[in-house]
Amino acid sequence: MPAATAKSSKRKDLRPASPWAARRRPRHEHALKREAVILAAAHAFRTRGYHNTSLDDLAASLRVTKPTLYLYVPNKEAMLFECFRAGLAQIQGSLDDCERAPGPARERLFAFIRGYAAAIVGDFGWCMLRAEDQHLSTGLSRRIKLLKAGIDKRMRALIEAGVADGSIRECDTRMTAFALAGALNWMGHWYREDASLNPQEIADRFIDVFNHGLRGQV
Amino acid sequence: MPAATAKSSKRKDLRPASPWAARRRPRHEHALKREAVILAAAHAFRTRGYHNTSLDDLAASLRVTKPTLYLYVPNKEAMLFECFRAGLAQIQGSLDDCERAPGPARERLFAFIRGYAAAIVGDFGWCMLRAEDQHLSTGLSRRIKLLKAGIDKRMRALIEAGVADGSIRECDTRMTAFALAGALNWMGHWYREDASLNPQEIADRFIDVFNHGLRGQV
Repeated sequence: MPAATAKSSKRKDLRPASPWAARRRPRHEHALKREAVILAAAHAFRTRGYHNTSLDDLAASLRVTKPTLYLYVPNKEAMLFECFRAGLAQIQGSLDDCERAPGPARERLFAFIRGYAAAIVGDFGWCMLRAEDQHLSTGLSRRIKLLKAGIDKRMRALIEAGVADGSIRECDTRMTAFALAGALNWMGHWYREDASLNPQEIADRFIDVFNHGLRGQV
Repeated sequence: MPAATAKSSKRKDLRPASPWAARRRPRHEHALKREAVILAAAHAFRTRGYHNTSLDDLAASLRVTKPTLYLYVPNKEAMLFECFRAGLAQIQGSLDDCERAPGPARERLFAFIRGYAAAIVGDFGWCMLRAEDQHLSTGLSRRIKLLKAGIDKRMRALIEAGVADGSIRECDTRMTAFALAGALNWMGHWYREDASLNPQEIADRFIDVFNHGLRGQV
């Protein structure tokens, strides 16, 4: 058996699926492991609920000890906040793209609706929607509210840009942003992964309603 | 001093504001007191949160003992369920009216949006929206889900009636119902009583968006 094959086979045997095995590039590894912790936490919070999830369960699901978790995130509340931030980052990324894109603001708003729908049905989306209801400390609760208000503001600015460029008709931009955010956030309550429509198809149905309205011929 | 005046004045002195004083018409009094318990519970759950509200606080706010509360509702979970039911009854009442009313279904749907907005920002509305998140027993949780699904179904039927009578254009009626319910339910998260718009004005802005859509001239 050639030496290279033996080495590769040996390495394969030693490598578990969890990212805690590798030893090279420590800074990069730390970031990867931290991401794995946050994703596992988000998944556990979503499936079991925040209060029903213990850090022991979380450590067990990652096959590490609880003190190992503390290397990445100091406590459970911070864990929920990091999940919230990960969801926020997805939505902010979509906003960045839509703000920079060329074309009428209405089309850019609709592209944002697609990005938001994809983010809100994921594990981090659950944390985005439910974090505030989990009896967090006042400071953290206020921080989350502020970050959410930032999203609302940018969404409203996109609607205002549409009114300015004529692609969106005159409307109450604040109430329109609330109606859109409500329709999208509500997905977090009723959407199931086995649903007949995927998040993009749902977003397209919502866009159809918000674009053309419901008014018929009669 | 005439006897009648003296008697009336004496009765006035003995009568506290709470409905626990009167002794006549016992069945009617029981129903009134039960309503007062449920309303006080809804207010406490909304302002302090379900888990932060104890039955001791609730008894104190009504100036009765905790065993007195148990004459009306057997435990805290049942208290939340009764609050949920009271909110549901408001929304069902509005649906009854809108289903029976004459005229195109689009207008009846919009009347329902006004009724729903008024119900959802009240104390019972909070319980409608948050009851499911309070770690209730599986049986109760399932019952709440079923009752909510009943509202969804009737709302969708109203949209379908609009498509049938031509007052609402062809659309995905299920997704339209979810978009409308989401916009309205989200009010429970952002609405404050000191807001610049009252629930009817907010409903009218939403109706404008859902009726005419956002599409501008460009």
